[in-house]
Amino acid sequence: MSSRKSARRRFLKESTALAVGALGAQSGLAAEAEAANEPHAGPRNYGNYGERSRFVTMARRDDYVSRLYPSKKVTPLQDLMGIITPAPLHFVANHSVPPDIDPREYRLLIHGMVDRPVTFTLDDLQRFPSESRIYFVECNGNGAPGKHSMSTARPEKTTSESVQDIHGRTSCSEWTGVPLSLVLNEAGVQKGASWIVSEGYDSQRYSHSLPLTKAMDDVLLAYGQNGEPVRPEQGYPVRLLAPGFQGPESVKWLRQIKVVDEPYVTREEISMHSYLTPNLQGKARWFHFEMPPKSVILRPAFGQQMRGKGYYEITGLAWSGGGAIRRVEISVDGGRSWKDAKLQEPVLRFAHTRFRFNWTWNGEETVILSRCTDERGTVQPSLAEFSKRLGAPKDFWRTSSVFHFNAIQPWKIERDGRVTDAMEL
Amino acid sequence: MSSRKSARRRFLKESTALAVGALGAQSGLAAEAEAANEPHAGPRNYGNYGERSRFVTMARRDDYVSRLYPSKKVTPLQDLMGIITPAPLHFVANHSVPPDIDPREYRLLIHGMVDRPVTFTLDDLQRFPSESRIYFVECNGNGAPGKHSMSTARPEKTTSESVQDIHGRTSCSEWTGVPLSLVLNEAGVQKGASWIVSEGYDSQRYSHSLPLTKAMDDVLLAYGQNGEPVRPEQGYPVRLLAPGFQGPESVKWLRQIKVVDEPYVTREEISMHSYLTPNLQGKARWFHFEMPPKSVILRPAFGQQMRGKGYYEITGLAWSGGGAIRRVEISVDGGRSWKDAKLQEPVLRFAHTRFRFNWTWNGEETVILSRCTDERGTVQPSLAEFSKRLGAPKDFWRTSSVFHFNAIQPWKIERDGRVTDAMEL
Repeated sequence: MSSRKSARRRFLKESTALAVGALGAQSGLAAEAEAANEPHAGPRNYGNYGERSRFVTMARRDDYVSRLYPSKKVTPLQDLMGIITPAPLHFVANHSVPPDIDPREYRLLIHGMVDRPVTFTLDDLQRFPSESRIYFVECNGNGAPGKHSMSTARPEKTTSESVQDIHGRTSCSEWTGVPLSLVLNEAGVQKGASWIVSEGYDSQRYSHSLPLTKAMDDVLLAYGQNGEPVRPEQGYPVRLLAPGFQGPESVKWLRQIKVVDEPYVTREEISMHSYLTPNLQGKARWFHFEMPPKSVILRPAFGQQMRGKGYYEITGLAWSGGGAIRRVEISVDGGRSWKDAKLQEPVLRFAHTRFRFNWTWNGEETVILSRCTDERGTVQPSLAEFSKRLGAPKDFWRTSSVFHFNAIQPWKIERDGRVTDAMEL
Repeated sequence: MSSRKSARRRFLKESTALAVGALGAQSGLAAEAEAANEPHAGPRNYGNYGERSRFVTMARRDDYVSRLYPSKKVTPLQDLMGIITPAPLHFVANHSVPPDIDPREYRLLIHGMVDRPVTFTLDDLQRFPSESRIYFVECNGNGAPGKHSMSTARPEKTTSESVQDIHGRTSCSEWTGVPLSLVLNEAGVQKGASWIVSEGYDSQRYSHSLPLTKAMDDVLLAYGQNGEPVRPEQGYPVRLLAPGFQGPESVKWLRQIKVVDEPYVTREEISMHSYLTPNLQGKARWFHFEMPPKSVILRPAFGQQMRGKGYYEITGLAWSGGGAIRRVEISVDGGRSWKDAKLQEPVLRFAHTRFRFNWTWNGEETVILSRCTDERGTVQPSLAEFSKRLGAPKDFWRTSSVFHFNAIQPWKIERDGRVTDAMEL
């Protein structure tokens, strides 16, 4: 056996849990040949829009705040493979009653500080040159202290039972649309303009401010998601897609964009998306866009059960509003030592990046963690580092939460194989 | 206005067809504000496995041979955006009655010239280290002469009405699975072995031979497709995925792999996947794996209607079994002159690559074509070049078809805007 072969087999030799039954080829085939003679109950025509196997049950879950917001859903990150989130499983974080838009009646108005206020139909937008990019979208509150089961920050809401409940407000799709810069140039942006304010067709006219520099850089008017039209809950027929920026900037069911010379203080910006921390000394932080580098181990993770000691592939996702992920490190000893995980190609800017790490669990209690670094060299902080930066004392998170929370997520593995949330909030 | 802005706007200025209504901001908003006060009929809870908009109808179509093979379907390539094919729209080319497999009862047998014949459960396979890759799968008969509307090769079957009917037997997904090499090494491949023969759980035990060198290189035992479990029609729960090779090698509903020292001559290899051409002098070609470089313009394309002269984005897909696409050229004058199209990043090996090209149609009759080159420098041939290579005389395709057909696809644009198939078969 070559050394390459033996290297490849080592992880299996080390494993006591991976029990595979070896049997003679002939006897195995004979048993199966009998079963093969039974009639096939399976479908013969899969339809022109296929369905998944009746045995597959992976699904979104209601967000624990879904009593307030009935259309909030979290993505089953722990069940996903690769980097693409299937459209039916994309997280949902809508604040209002979404519209049901007939694409023939759809109109987008561009106005404000422009030479030519203009209205586009969907057909107009789809005739512009287009782009397709694989980008993540993440809710600004994803993973925040109030969402951890062990947090007492908002006791009436802390019902997280799994990694999905805590971190499932991020998803990654191939988005297709028109560069917003093309459309703004068509309208003619006037001198002195510095922001845009976008508004949706939902019941509350959801609205958010975005710097014009970003709008002219890489923002898309997205009408495609994973090859198909954008899903209804994601803003059909047209949404903004501001890569790397917090989800709230990517306004859905886009109704109008007004070019202005200062940020508007919209309802959401005041009531939902501002926050207080000790180092702000009583002032609120309002305009904060870029999502910080973050990684989460998804298998094994909170809510799962290990099946005894032996070989495991540790896998998860990393992403950053700062661009591409450059490195993911794993610790299997509570943070004492770290080793590099393997990053799955393609590693793309503003996209989920899949990481993998081979591990043999010895059956003892331990804590596993992941820590990522993005292309700017920004490193995902520990909870202590994150808190220090915000001037937050040790018990701060017992009564407060925060947006853009990206502290390293520790999972504790108990001797009996249960995996729990070890974030010390 | 900066020169960058004016460059961006040129395509719109040149367009007489892109009519966008300009209106005063206030009057536009007032009209819409009224509509906004109507109650929203849209869904408030999108479910834990979402559905697409009721206005979206893009769909697979029955393959024109679906009288013989009821589960054959073609992908609506012309409606897709980006490079990912949504799983419900992946083409289907099954030859037999597919199984309906309970994943708890699934078994994969590895036997033949191995040290340890072994059976794996699905759970066993999913505990191996995994990989995710974006790969195309293409039917070996995709786009072949018999599928062109203007061909008289098989008149009883030539009912193609669109690019989808002709070229819709290719799709591209993010596949996740175990490298087959890991599993074969676990079984211990014996000296002298040079091929594998794989067999499915379908009614006819569909079976195909593959060189061991490929099996040990980059073939996956795939259980994931675009983040979810593989769809039933794609081989749930486990299929082979042989990147760049013709679809028939990627055996679905995988039941067993036998390691052998010569190719087996399976039913499909003899009856379906061999072919005769003049330069073979009466011998049939049996083992031919790699799909050649191919590109197709998907908008505008056969079956579509142009909406008058003016600006159009020409877009389509290119792919090659030889690796990554390096170049796509477009001709809008019947092949007299060619210009480079823009390739959409990421450009990945063995994956669909999206190309785009800005064009202003002057309203006159013309023929548009695309021609790709892969990383080896192999250039997609014209029909004349392709035929010459096979020793086929001019009228050969009137009575014959062929696998791995990759001749450049010309679309004719009529003065009235109709787009037709101009392949001169």
